[in-house]
Amino acid sequence: MENEDFAQRSQLDLPAWEALRKRIAPYIHRTPVLTCSTLDAEAGCRLFFKCENFQKIGAFKMRGAINAALNLPQEALARGLATHSSGNFAQAVALSAKLLGVPAYIVMPENAPQVKKDAVKGYGATVIECPSTQAAREAAVEEVVREKGATFLHPYNDWNVIYGQGTAAAELLEEVPDLDFILAPVGGGGLMSGTAMAAAAYAPRCAAFGAEPLLAGDAYLSLHKGSVQKAFPPRTIADGLRTSLGDKTLYTLSRYLKDILLVEEHEIVQAMQWVWERMKILIEPSSAVPLAAVLHNEGIFSGAKVGIILSGGNVDAGCVFRHLDEVIKENTK
Amino acid sequence: MENEDFAQRSQLDLPAWEALRKRIAPYIHRTPVLTCSTLDAEAGCRLFFKCENFQKIGAFKMRGAINAALNLPQEALARGLATHSSGNFAQAVALSAKLLGVPAYIVMPENAPQVKKDAVKGYGATVIECPSTQAAREAAVEEVVREKGATFLHPYNDWNVIYGQGTAAAELLEEVPDLDFILAPVGGGGLMSGTAMAAAAYAPRCAAFGAEPLLAGDAYLSLHKGSVQKAFPPRTIADGLRTSLGDKTLYTLSRYLKDILLVEEHEIVQAMQWVWERMKILIEPSSAVPLAAVLHNEGIFSGAKVGIILSGGNVDAGCVFRHLDEVIKENTK
Repeated sequence: MENEDFAQRSQLDLPAWEALRKRIAPYIHRTPVLTCSTLDAEAGCRLFFKCENFQKIGAFKMRGAINAALNLPQEALARGLATHSSGNFAQAVALSAKLLGVPAYIVMPENAPQVKKDAVKGYGATVIECPSTQAAREAAVEEVVREKGATFLHPYNDWNVIYGQGTAAAELLEEVPDLDFILAPVGGGGLMSGTAMAAAAYAPRCAAFGAEPLLAGDAYLSLHKGSVQKAFPPRTIADGLRTSLGDKTLYTLSRYLKDILLVEEHEIVQAMQWVWERMKILIEPSSAVPLAAVLHNEGIFSGAKVGIILSGGNVDAGCVFRHLDEVIKENTK
Repeated sequence: MENEDFAQRSQLDLPAWEALRKRIAPYIHRTPVLTCSTLDAEAGCRLFFKCENFQKIGAFKMRGAINAALNLPQEALARGLATHSSGNFAQAVALSAKLLGVPAYIVMPENAPQVKKDAVKGYGATVIECPSTQAAREAAVEEVVREKGATFLHPYNDWNVIYGQGTAAAELLEEVPDLDFILAPVGGGGLMSGTAMAAAAYAPRCAAFGAEPLLAGDAYLSLHKGSVQKAFPPRTIADGLRTSLGDKTLYTLSRYLKDILLVEEHEIVQAMQWVWERMKILIEPSSAVPLAAVLHNEGIFSGAKVGIILSGGNVDAGCVFRHLDEVIKENTK
């Protein structure tokens, strides 16, 4: 029964994609697709980067959050949105609520960085602090859902969130319809599920690969074992990819993905550095994982046209500015 | 006599601009114009950023170098290009020579960073090392000009270089024709001269302002005194702006600029940080100087449409990658 529902929900036809893209268009940026001949030479293939680091809130999460919000019945939407997250999804829900003129309740661990709490508050959301355990987070969200009648939005294991994330790939494939491959990073699997679904609709001959750090290879194991495996200890520098899959994303990835490619930590840093230095754009470590996979799997990608979703750009570059401040002190004393 | 020539050379009509833009088009990128609503709110005006950090070699200098090279007689061009520089102009001349299939001879101080020498060699240029004094540099260039018959290209005090740099502003004004103001950083004055000339041709009602660090305010003094003032000691973090004007750029800036606005060092770092964090693009400190000027001169720019040339993105972000390498070591031990 569940599988029948999943089979239907994990497939959208082109008119459905077009309709949902039109609905969210006023609330998101259509982000650019960038290319870089130096990186092409390095990779031995033609790369097309979909720049979700330029998306509102600096990451693709805005797409899924606004699409889920717009799919709520009017009365439910009016009572507000709730989620627990200390990352990009918190900001995406907060901004979506602001744009739609409804309240947002964001549960954040009390030890979350002040700058992240401030960013969410800056969008007018109510921040609810809780102890930093999964149980405490869930209890706090349940309470706000019960008390305020707000709707809980899951960051990835939700069909409307998945569809929203897929619109980045839909835009990319509209612009470059003859891609041989499309890749995205895999954390909870929302972006990758939407990407693979969109590819199936817009470019059936385009093969989808996930990319994941070896140190957070739970999605790789989940796909190969056929059941959701627990998240690994949070050791990868790709901090957006430390979560486990959900049942909906496991189903969708199993249905569509050719495979998940695993990369090492130093390969992630190298890929990120190349994007910064050669393309002059900021991406966060999670975003560099698919490029690392392309660079280290020549056998698959050589000579092909390859699309990569650069998932976000929310990375701490504070050391650069602190270094300049020190140079100033030195030069003006 | 010189002034009569300068008066003519410092003014191009639209057909002349269009012709030279067409000639260099195959060799340069048409860079994007980006906007950012968060920065607009911060600045109290509408900002349009011309992203020369995405230009070939990562800076506007490519435009001037290729335009100067294309204006040489065929026999002179065939004997090659020469310059002395340890910065972006060295790479711009090296790449121009490579694209045109002629030799390049780049004089660099022996203590220049290896990475800069390697970048120039990577374009197939011959690097000639010399002691790190102005006299030694000039002697070394004179020698290669005499021996090889190569043509010396000055990084800014050359009309064809100035025209080339102006094509960035021409593209910006073609895309946003109703700018009230246009700004660029001022070092040797090549970019600013070309920018102001292009504005005079493409948008006569658009006022041009230069922007300069207080710690390198020699162009400000030069304009107000009417003669080229010596470069200040190299103390500003905007390391691309430490040179003095030349006679051609002094003349052109005096003719066209409303004024040069001076900014403090910490204002430069703050503006640079905002561009990195909010626009997710890398710019070098020199590029942040005009934005700093806009942010600290509300009285001039409030409510206006303001164009800014982001001159380049060749900045050292190594500390970010070194930090990640340390996190990896910590997490995997």
